[in-house]
Amino acid sequence: MYVIDTTLKKPLHLQLYEALKEDIIKNYTVGEKLPSIRSVASSYSLSKTTVESAFSQLYAEGYLQSRPKSGYYVRDFQFTIGASMDATSSIAPEIYTSYRYDFFPAQLTKEDFPLKLWKRLSTKAINESLDFGAYHDGQGESALREVIATYLVDSRGVTCHANQIVICHGFSDAMALLAKLVRDKYSHFAVENPGYHVARRVFEEYGYTISKIDVDAQGLDIDALKSSKALLVYITPSHQYPTGVSMPIANRLELITYMQSMGGLIIEDDYDSELSYDSRPIPSLQGLDKHDCVVYMGTFAKSLSPTLRVSYMVLPKHLIPLFKESYDAHFPRVSLITQHTLKLFIAGGYYEKHIRKIRTRNMKKHNLMKQLFQEKLLNSFEILSQGGGLAILIMPTVPFDWEKFNALAEKSSIKLYYANERSGGNFEALRMGFGGFSEARLEEAIEAFSEIWHKSII
Amino acid sequence: MYVIDTTLKKPLHLQLYEALKEDIIKNYTVGEKLPSIRSVASSYSLSKTTVESAFSQLYAEGYLQSRPKSGYYVRDFQFTIGASMDATSSIAPEIYTSYRYDFFPAQLTKEDFPLKLWKRLSTKAINESLDFGAYHDGQGESALREVIATYLVDSRGVTCHANQIVICHGFSDAMALLAKLVRDKYSHFAVENPGYHVARRVFEEYGYTISKIDVDAQGLDIDALKSSKALLVYITPSHQYPTGVSMPIANRLELITYMQSMGGLIIEDDYDSELSYDSRPIPSLQGLDKHDCVVYMGTFAKSLSPTLRVSYMVLPKHLIPLFKESYDAHFPRVSLITQHTLKLFIAGGYYEKHIRKIRTRNMKKHNLMKQLFQEKLLNSFEILSQGGGLAILIMPTVPFDWEKFNALAEKSSIKLYYANERSGGNFEALRMGFGGFSEARLEEAIEAFSEIWHKSII
Repeated sequence: MYVIDTTLKKPLHLQLYEALKEDIIKNYTVGEKLPSIRSVASSYSLSKTTVESAFSQLYAEGYLQSRPKSGYYVRDFQFTIGASMDATSSIAPEIYTSYRYDFFPAQLTKEDFPLKLWKRLSTKAINESLDFGAYHDGQGESALREVIATYLVDSRGVTCHANQIVICHGFSDAMALLAKLVRDKYSHFAVENPGYHVARRVFEEYGYTISKIDVDAQGLDIDALKSSKALLVYITPSHQYPTGVSMPIANRLELITYMQSMGGLIIEDDYDSELSYDSRPIPSLQGLDKHDCVVYMGTFAKSLSPTLRVSYMVLPKHLIPLFKESYDAHFPRVSLITQHTLKLFIAGGYYEKHIRKIRTRNMKKHNLMKQLFQEKLLNSFEILSQGGGLAILIMPTVPFDWEKFNALAEKSSIKLYYANERSGGNFEALRMGFGGFSEARLEEAIEAFSEIWHKSII
Repeated sequence: MYVIDTTLKKPLHLQLYEALKEDIIKNYTVGEKLPSIRSVASSYSLSKTTVESAFSQLYAEGYLQSRPKSGYYVRDFQFTIGASMDATSSIAPEIYTSYRYDFFPAQLTKEDFPLKLWKRLSTKAINESLDFGAYHDGQGESALREVIATYLVDSRGVTCHANQIVICHGFSDAMALLAKLVRDKYSHFAVENPGYHVARRVFEEYGYTISKIDVDAQGLDIDALKSSKALLVYITPSHQYPTGVSMPIANRLELITYMQSMGGLIIEDDYDSELSYDSRPIPSLQGLDKHDCVVYMGTFAKSLSPTLRVSYMVLPKHLIPLFKESYDAHFPRVSLITQHTLKLFIAGGYYEKHIRKIRTRNMKKHNLMKQLFQEKLLNSFEILSQGGGLAILIMPTVPFDWEKFNALAEKSSIKLYYANERSGGNFEALRMGFGGFSEARLEEAIEAFSEIWHKSII
């Protein structure tokens, strides 16, 4: 007997379906005939429709087969009862350690985000008759690409048209897209050493041969690049990651001329160009290129928020037809609401104002951190990179017990980031992020940091 | 003489910088000394700070070098003036043809999206103290993963824990992530034939060998899969794409048992499970798996909106540590606001209500389309797939002039989608989408369609 309870909220056909299914699995043999719909309906005082509905579901799932004018029979299924695994049992819960002072080098404070404005623009974006039923342009909304192009031309000296821009959901996404796009043409990828490891990782994943090219006081060593024979090179010319070196104009031009002559491609990552404190931001290398051989990578992660997941790349014109034919051109990579809100934010002039505010605010923190290092660490350290972004790169100039230092940091709940973890290279330097602290908290944090620093000097 | 205009809004140091830069490029030679800061300041009645600022910028950009106690000199840069390319000139404007009747098979109407509610929840999500300064969990927000897990367990019979879910920005994104994740273990990928080409394309891009396995009335031909020796297989068991066949329980179990015995992996794409009209949605194949050998793929594109760019996959437990070690675990793939809004939408019970509404609405359109086909096309066609999703698959059963048909469609501004364009297979069938039409528009559209159809019958 099946238990069918008419007082339950669960539909009767569903109750019957479950009871029947269990019964079939446990008690029926293959080929056995089920009672007729009419008899089940009458036994349980159910309508024929209800019973039919349960039977059809079991039929649809393959438990039953139907013989015309005869009825339903149990199908040949073998119900293997394997070693049962409880999906919820064997995974350890996720533990996120929260540190007292976290010097994460790519963080902004919550207050840095224009919350109220974003809310207003986001509502406006939803209101403005977006078509939520359709797939949109896989390259990104053209209205957003237009305002980004204007911004890049005006503020970064990039020479581009909206048609060259592809909206991506982050730097690694853009790099992956590019890696796929050009792999019929290139197979050898050069990166700066030390350099941003994400760039290398992405191209490694797509099977490229990797050459690491040393960085000196002029940025990438162009002779070493020539020796490597790589025709695809990733660089951070405005503010080299992680050394902070800016590539001089002569080297930029030499690099462009060389790569153009060889049919090569330069990937310029302008990763924190909006946050430059010592001088005006250096115009992009892409703007010097007259030969259509530079891909320009930019992001809103540092200048606005990493949570939005919006970045972009500017393709050289010769790659646009290739992109449009590619599979990636079919699906947008960022939500329509986000794209439209961001478009309103840039078009309304808010982005420029916001950058100025963020730059001023973070320049203060940058200068405060520098000053605090000088006051607290005295002559025991040197600054390797400064003047931009959200971190200062330092290293000790005195004999230093790194093991002890790390143990003390852990004990004092201070989270530190080593330059070589994210960028390779053989120097032991710390990437000290200031962006995630308020000024007051930054003072506290450096106080705590300097205590463990001094204890680690041998 | 440089033109420095104090009445302009542009800062003086910027005016000077630009004038100097042009002068250097045009008139100076390498090694030539620039006038001293003092003399420039006095010649143009500018402050020393203003002049210093312009000089430092040129220094930072590599145009000048500085010799201590001597002054600034022009650096050795070669200014190559290549064949100038005007970036805005040579790209044709983008032309999107808008059709009178577009039968796109994966479209919803604008009215299907819960606009007001989404606006409210989105504002709430922004209010609820999100930390916009920080990078978040690359696997997706755990609160969103929790509610998706609950939904999947309750509605799709999936056995899973939030820890197994990865939030992606679309089906192809999830597939790419998986292709990377398991490629040390597998190199041979089997797909249904006919089958969804995006799945094949993604794995091809990652260098997998592809086997196409025929689909019959029971879904994937398991014997053919065995012969292929592929240990990684992509299937759409609930509603095969594009044939609509549902894989019977016996085959599901046989497939699981076989793949488990061989150490294989099944990728179940449950792509339009929420939109099932003939019977209740068939529970997932994943829920039958006791051996941790199924990856489950789901999306919000069809049940909510393709513009949100949110999908997810449920990994078998043994792949979770691998994912967590992978590079992809570092960066979220969907914006925090979208994730948080969606979480509120599901947790508030709105998603279930919404699915019911969408299902009813689209079932009506599905039935209307079917009825209209029967009325207008009479005996000249057969339905190959129906009962779910946003499209009905039809083909002519009479001699048919496809060339003429396509020409007429173009002329009448009717956009059609062939099943084999997106899924391979050797049948010429049309995927007729109804989701993007209102009922009234659907009648019009089928009327226009039937006219060109009849003219094409030979």
